[in-house]
Amino acid sequence: MRTTTNPFDDDKLREECAIFGIYGTPDAAAHLALGLHALQHRGQEGTGIVTYDDRDDQFHAHRENGHVGDVFGDPAVMEQLVGNSGIGHNRYSTTGDTMRRNVQPLFGDLEFGGLAVAHNGNLTNAINVREDLVRRGSIFQSTTDTEVILHLMATMSGSVVDRLISTLREVEGAYSLVCLTRKKLIGVRDPMGVRPLVLGKLGPSYILASETVGLDIIGADKVRDVSPGEVIVIDEEGLHSYFPFESAPSKLCIFEFIYFSRPDSVIEDSSVYEARKRIGMELARENPVEVDLVVPIPDSGVPSAIGYAEESGFPFEYGIIRNHYVGRTFIEPTDEIRHLGVKLKHNANRAMLEGKRVVLVDDSIVRGTTSRKIVEMVRAAGATEVHMRIASPPTTHSCFYGVDTPERSKLLAAQHTIEEMRHLIGCDSLDFLTMDGLYRAMGKEGRNNEMPQYCDACFSGEYPIRLKDHEDVSRGQRQLSLLRDAS
Amino acid sequence: MRTTTNPFDDDKLREECAIFGIYGTPDAAAHLALGLHALQHRGQEGTGIVTYDDRDDQFHAHRENGHVGDVFGDPAVMEQLVGNSGIGHNRYSTTGDTMRRNVQPLFGDLEFGGLAVAHNGNLTNAINVREDLVRRGSIFQSTTDTEVILHLMATMSGSVVDRLISTLREVEGAYSLVCLTRKKLIGVRDPMGVRPLVLGKLGPSYILASETVGLDIIGADKVRDVSPGEVIVIDEEGLHSYFPFESAPSKLCIFEFIYFSRPDSVIEDSSVYEARKRIGMELARENPVEVDLVVPIPDSGVPSAIGYAEESGFPFEYGIIRNHYVGRTFIEPTDEIRHLGVKLKHNANRAMLEGKRVVLVDDSIVRGTTSRKIVEMVRAAGATEVHMRIASPPTTHSCFYGVDTPERSKLLAAQHTIEEMRHLIGCDSLDFLTMDGLYRAMGKEGRNNEMPQYCDACFSGEYPIRLKDHEDVSRGQRQLSLLRDAS
Amino acid sequence: MRTTTNPFDDDKLREECAIFGIYGTPDAAAHLALGLHALQHRGQEGTGIVTYDDRDDQFHAHRENGHVGDVFGDPAVMEQLVGNSGIGHNRYSTTGDTMRRNVQPLFGDLEFGGLAVAHNGNLTNAINVREDLVRRGSIFQSTTDTEVILHLMATMSGSVVDRLISTLREVEGAYSLVCLTRKKLIGVRDPMGVRPLVLGKLGPSYILASETVGLDIIGADKVRDVSPGEVIVIDEEGLHSYFPFESAPSKLCIFEFIYFSRPDSVIEDSSVYEARKRIGMELARENPVEVDLVVPIPDSGVPSAIGYAEESGFPFEYGIIRNHYVGRTFIEPTDEIRHLGVKLKHNANRAMLEGKRVVLVDDSIVRGTTSRKIVEMVRAAGATEVHMRIASPPTTHSCFYGVDTPERSKLLAAQHTIEEMRHLIGCDSLDFLTMDGLYRAMGKEGRNNEMPQYCDACFSGEYPIRLKDHEDVSRGQRQLSLLRDAS
Amino acid sequence: MRTTTNPFDDDKLREECAIFGIYGTPDAAAHLALGLHALQHRGQEGTGIVTYDDRDDQFHAHRENGHVGDVFGDPAVMEQLVGNSGIGHNRYSTTGDTMRRNVQPLFGDLEFGGLAVAHNGNLTNAINVREDLVRRGSIFQSTTDTEVILHLMATMSGSVVDRLISTLREVEGAYSLVCLTRKKLIGVRDPMGVRPLVLGKLGPSYILASETVGLDIIGADKVRDVSPGEVIVIDEEGLHSYFPFESAPSKLCIFEFIYFSRPDSVIEDSSVYEARKRIGMELARENPVEVDLVVPIPDSGVPSAIGYAEESGFPFEYGIIRNHYVGRTFIEPTDEIRHLGVKLKHNANRAMLEGKRVVLVDDSIVRGTTSRKIVEMVRAAGATEVHMRIASPPTTHSCFYGVDTPERSKLLAAQHTIEEMRHLIGCDSLDFLTMDGLYRAMGKEGRNNEMPQYCDACFSGEYPIRLKDHEDVSRGQRQLSLLRDAS
Repeated sequence: MRTTTNPFDDDKLREECAIFGIYGTPDAAAHLALGLHALQHRGQEGTGIVTYDDRDDQFHAHRENGHVGDVFGDPAVMEQLVGNSGIGHNRYSTTGDTMRRNVQPLFGDLEFGGLAVAHNGNLTNAINVREDLVRRGSIFQSTTDTEVILHLMATMSGSVVDRLISTLREVEGAYSLVCLTRKKLIGVRDPMGVRPLVLGKLGPSYILASETVGLDIIGADKVRDVSPGEVIVIDEEGLHSYFPFESAPSKLCIFEFIYFSRPDSVIEDSSVYEARKRIGMELARENPVEVDLVVPIPDSGVPSAIGYAEESGFPFEYGIIRNHYVGRTFIEPTDEIRHLGVKLKHNANRAMLEGKRVVLVDDSIVRGTTSRKIVEMVRAAGATEVHMRIASPPTTHSCFYGVDTPERSKLLAAQHTIEEMRHLIGCDSLDFLTMDGLYRAMGKEGRNNEMPQYCDACFSGEYPIRLKDHEDVSRGQRQLSLLRDAS
Repeated sequence: MRTTTNPFDDDKLREECAIFGIYGTPDAAAHLALGLHALQHRGQEGTGIVTYDDRDDQFHAHRENGHVGDVFGDPAVMEQLVGNSGIGHNRYSTTGDTMRRNVQPLFGDLEFGGLAVAHNGNLTNAINVREDLVRRGSIFQSTTDTEVILHLMATMSGSVVDRLISTLREVEGAYSLVCLTRKKLIGVRDPMGVRPLVLGKLGPSYILASETVGLDIIGADKVRDVSPGEVIVIDEEGLHSYFPFESAPSKLCIFEFIYFSRPDSVIEDSSVYEARKRIGMELARENPVEVDLVVPIPDSGVPSAIGYAEESGFPFEYGIIRNHYVGRTFIEPTDEIRHLGVKLKHNANRAMLEGKRVVLVDDSIVRGTTSRKIVEMVRAAGATEVHMRIASPPTTHSCFYGVDTPERSKLLAAQHTIEEMRHLIGCDSLDFLTMDGLYRAMGKEGRNNEMPQYCDACFSGEYPIRLKDHEDVSRGQRQLSLLRDAS
Repeated sequence: MRTTTNPFDDDKLREECAIFGIYGTPDAAAHLALGLHALQHRGQEGTGIVTYDDRDDQFHAHRENGHVGDVFGDPAVMEQLVGNSGIGHNRYSTTGDTMRRNVQPLFGDLEFGGLAVAHNGNLTNAINVREDLVRRGSIFQSTTDTEVILHLMATMSGSVVDRLISTLREVEGAYSLVCLTRKKLIGVRDPMGVRPLVLGKLGPSYILASETVGLDIIGADKVRDVSPGEVIVIDEEGLHSYFPFESAPSKLCIFEFIYFSRPDSVIEDSSVYEARKRIGMELARENPVEVDLVVPIPDSGVPSAIGYAEESGFPFEYGIIRNHYVGRTFIEPTDEIRHLGVKLKHNANRAMLEGKRVVLVDDSIVRGTTSRKIVEMVRAAGATEVHMRIASPPTTHSCFYGVDTPERSKLLAAQHTIEEMRHLIGCDSLDFLTMDGLYRAMGKEGRNNEMPQYCDACFSGEYPIRLKDHEDVSRGQRQLSLLRDAS
Repeated sequence: MRTTTNPFDDDKLREECAIFGIYGTPDAAAHLALGLHALQHRGQEGTGIVTYDDRDDQFHAHRENGHVGDVFGDPAVMEQLVGNSGIGHNRYSTTGDTMRRNVQPLFGDLEFGGLAVAHNGNLTNAINVREDLVRRGSIFQSTTDTEVILHLMATMSGSVVDRLISTLREVEGAYSLVCLTRKKLIGVRDPMGVRPLVLGKLGPSYILASETVGLDIIGADKVRDVSPGEVIVIDEEGLHSYFPFESAPSKLCIFEFIYFSRPDSVIEDSSVYEARKRIGMELARENPVEVDLVVPIPDSGVPSAIGYAEESGFPFEYGIIRNHYVGRTFIEPTDEIRHLGVKLKHNANRAMLEGKRVVLVDDSIVRGTTSRKIVEMVRAAGATEVHMRIASPPTTHSCFYGVDTPERSKLLAAQHTIEEMRHLIGCDSLDFLTMDGLYRAMGKEGRNNEMPQYCDACFSGEYPIRLKDHEDVSRGQRQLSLLRDAS
């Protein structure tokens, strides 16, 4: 069962980040480490925690490349992270930017005191704002768009909350944020609520987390989702809610249900696991095929394959076995290993597949490279027919809202018809879920094309938030003078 | 789907080792690394490769604590492991013996030249033989029983094969071995064939591997299982087979089918996945219960849960989600993390379980600590009834044949009746598969109590091979003078 | 012969930094590494290099704790430091500030492009300026005063040189600076020239270095000392010199001649070695004593002991042998090792000392702890009389101009009369050089008390530059919100 | 002042090892670490300690590449080395053999219990004995000749002392040994006493050390030198002395006085420092020259230069300054750094040398590469005449007794006349000490050519001990099957 997005999954979209915050508990860091561990699938390159300890009036940080369990399993690290409040972050990064100084949360010593910020999403006007700030005299230390928020707040005036709200009015994009000051934990969700953020409670302590699984692992209860456009401020006096933006239509990312979130998470009252099963059932209804076995491509195809099998009446079987031990260093494999490719992670259950007609169920197709290798492997194991059913519409557009997508030219469905894709992948039939089928699985009557109920830009190309930096690329902006610094 | 035995699974029996060998291929080390990666589940503490390069007439080695993907994903390591033949090893180790010098393969410069040996299993008279060797003047460098084989061969005379056969006549136990010399790759399976060993071929190259998944990953074909008591010698002239022992009844470890082997392996013509499904079906027939959901304890309970669901007609659902990211350093968790325990690895799929009657299917119960926490978690998620079905008989005895088992006093089933166990675990009903049910699932009419068809000592206490060292423990043997050396 | 200031020398004053810059040579980094190696004695905690490569229009950096030979002896590091211009830095740090992000050169992406800065000295109003900058919106990443210069320049307007000159008018203190931009290498010496900085040339390339030994190692020629208050700008068009400050009296640190600089350096036309010999001769004239041997405390006491011997006519002998292998980790010795203390570094040459009257010559006394142990060791070796002569006046005041001095309460000479010091140290006689004797050794007629020719504040307490931050300490300033971050 | 043999000194002979042992003191490891630190100059590649703790009846070890201060400055390492007795070792190694498993002391679990052995010197029949042992069934783990002793002892019978004495009768060579068992510390010096070994006492604890400086650092008193051919056994009952060999003439290595030993050591009642001064005086008498300055090549040339200056009446001055910071990684310098060569370590004191006639004094010439560069550097600094005087006879032969010497073809004096050498080095005159002059400086009337009082084979080619392995090289022996194992 998928709970992970392995860095070897280069044929998947990758969520950029997880965020987590907690206020007012004796051992904040241990709760943060556990919450980040439960959210590991949202970002695996690096992880960081900043705590604040009101006894010594001091912020403490540890940020490092690596998995949560490795970085924060070290007792020497944990015992330095004293404090009763804190925020944490897991991150993905694109090639060349794996510098440690980009690992969040970021921290600055501002006029009012220390401020730490962690961020899931993407600011679509970050380059523009950064240029203005540099002209004004701000010196950036990282290449993350998160640092824009820190510098804007430094140059604003007024209380922390005033500064934050003024800052948010300057930036555009899809984001969920957590901020930590000496006195406050703050959570923000962008006006359209593209990225998820949930509020929880454990005894007297409030928690903010990207997904409910971050609450489950520490035994916290979900209070509610943070609303689109909401700023939640938690301090000694309790919780305060602000809505500083004009009202905007909700645009939760529908891909959270298809792939990003863990199946055991609940987003805006929908179980991800059940949504995936219903997607599988819709897929079976829209695209039936006569087979002997319904086989998931593990782990992410499992719930939709169960739904597909249930609806179609054909048996669900593990015809492909996944090896979870793929180490991080196999990420840069030798040529010999690269050649063997997909087998590092998947192996055909030959005894099960031999002589059978098989339908493979997967969540999505990005580049299609893995799909092709898996079909080849399944055929080599003796399957007589190999059909493929994809539990989402064709992925035809890049995401600019915090997901690491290839350029359009690398997206198989942006370049090819379905029949061409079938041919390239080498399966006997290939079908995708329709857009309406997807919305039906989400409990709607279908997609409201006037005002889509979710952000589905990766399927539709309809971007609900302006892409300012992207549009400016051709205008020839100021070049950043970056320091290439291994350390 | 389980392919792994995570070190955090302290409530599982642990296989001690995997072995792999290849002869006559341009890049032996890459094939060894891949084969060992596919066999990672059999040993996760350390891994090692020794190659022989006939161009420079030199042996090359790298042995280190860690996962295969981490140790052999390093190009700097791989490029030193030149050679066209080699053997490799993954190992578990019990506490206190994680010294790097114990990581196999072991190597010695003998009269005839270099010899590397790797070993899966346990020699039951190793301490006795070691004492004789030390008296004779042999100096041991490790605490592994494998080194006994190396030293015995050094003190024998004749050809390598003569020395090996003479050596094997001196040792008792359950073992599969691979040996490498300048000219030969040799594989051995003990007279009763307790541990598996399979022969494969890739083009002109012969391969020896603990399981067929080691062949699959490099695209090799299975030739046949190495027979119990067989010595296979591979050299320039091809393959030679010797049977130097008196004929003995076959006693393959039945736990390989229950838990140790990967589901996609085939042992002695039986698919492990299908055996587990049939075990689940037998379990459903012997111990039916009226429920809403059949829920596996992932990953190892999945195939038997599918079988249970198929036979019982109740729906199979992922009511528990597994997080595969548990880092190695979380093995020594802080108190805070320990308290939260099982949640590092498993989370209840709350939306699925609420208000449901559930039967949990697991492969076995060792200490029972995890089972208790999972039942508690499933109840907390709102399940109205929680039944438990175990896909094997009660584990009542320790293994002395190469599996890391707790002492009998720690085995829940050795100390308690099933009703007591049910009470301790906190489920509404608890049932185990019968011994005959297990043998039926393996395709027999039942257990032949005169001459059991498998080694089932962990369930029956009937040990097919003499436990010489174990019997001598009370006799007060010579104490080893060991060096405590971190390096 | 002393060339080093070992970190174990906790009884010495410690120079805070070395700086080095080079413009227009094919392999700037190799020259920087060599120059910094020659200047290792000025700072041993960490070292850093920033280069600029005009082919890829990119800055490259490596900054790390450790010695130059260890950090930049790594070919993998060096091959990343491509470029034809660059600056480098060695640093000392006081306890608690050994954070890697404090290792210079510092770098910022300013409106005009990248800027790297490295600094030897101390800004005496850095905290005041920093507060203003934070209020304005600047976010500091380090705790070094150097960062103030970077931020001031970011908030100024005009060309790089305009911004730098405006910045220098805002700061007070003793400093030598090197700056690197895409087009320029810039060197600055503070208005009074407290810290040294020398200009050299190697073929067409200009070099800036803290001492001439940095030129010698790469075979460069000395052009001249940078003048007090001079800003030197080197670019494609050659060298430009600016004098933006009002004229001020020269106040070179006299301790550079006593201890900080290498003996083979030449500062403002004076050979350091010869200055030390003349100091020893003055010391012999002022404080003669009848002995059998003149014994230096190696390495720093050697040249003055040679001068003392020459002047007094008593033989110079190595009665104390120094072990140069004291590793960095012995810095935090176990109790057992601490107890044995001074012997890690010095051993009495027993055969030489036995039965002899000895005068020990050392450069200065700070805390006096080492002096006491050495006298004890020399007596234990059988010396019949142990006299001590110090080649400088009593060190009675802290330095605020870039030297790591203990607080006055820890300075032996600030708390005790010379007779008390003699008693505490346990020698038969103790004498210091007079202030006039010191100035005579420097070629003056004596100290001009109206307008001393050097900064001698550590002996006289007369501070030529205002100590603004120090004076404000009691006024209760804004507290920095610092992040305690091991990484 | 030289106390070190820096690995960058590739133009010096290198002592192979230091040994140290202590019996019966509460914190043996701290004393061992200090003693090894004082003996660092005898071996800098790796260091190791084995202790025995009679409370837990356990041996403890740590062996690692690196300097003593770095390896044993780590408190985590030291706290594991519990015990009241122990032995330690510093080692040099020739290229390719820097494997960690070669770091001594070696350890074996023999019939009578644990045995650790450390060794300074070289067994001249080690390969022959090793072959016999391998034929017999011994498995070697290292490539050190020390392991021969361990294996011989394992195959002998009788008490530890009986086994050791029988073993010593089988081996030939120059060696000092320390051995540790559960009950005993044993020291051995070869029959001719080529390598030094001294007995000390600290309270009730006996100590064995390569040089007296190892006693000085822990405050121990020298009892006496261990005699040539003596076996000293220290246990609960005190000290026992055995002389198992036939009487042989004493042949202490004369190079210990010229270069290997620290100047503050005393060997067989001679102060090394004073011996070197007398050598310098002899040199001045034999080879006078009219100069302005006597300049040592630091550090090793300092005492003989002082002697030369004293005898000649010309002033002693530090015309060359040594930088002690040369890191270990500069050992493999980049091309740029290699080109600059000698300047990493030595710099001309230009102000001192300019316009002067100079005599440079060095201890010996091996390859001559450094000498040539230093002469060039001194000339470039403006010296008008550069004469060179060497404080030993020409080094014409390789050492086979535990010193790392180049082959004869690389020894400058083996290939060239003195006039040719002078020309190659580029000095105005070059003279060496005569053999008789050397013996006179040692207090003899001259060399007794019938029966030389020291081993002077490196000057004379007269090898007092048979070179069995060396003679057999052409006979084509069995090839070792070695494992190339980075770990």
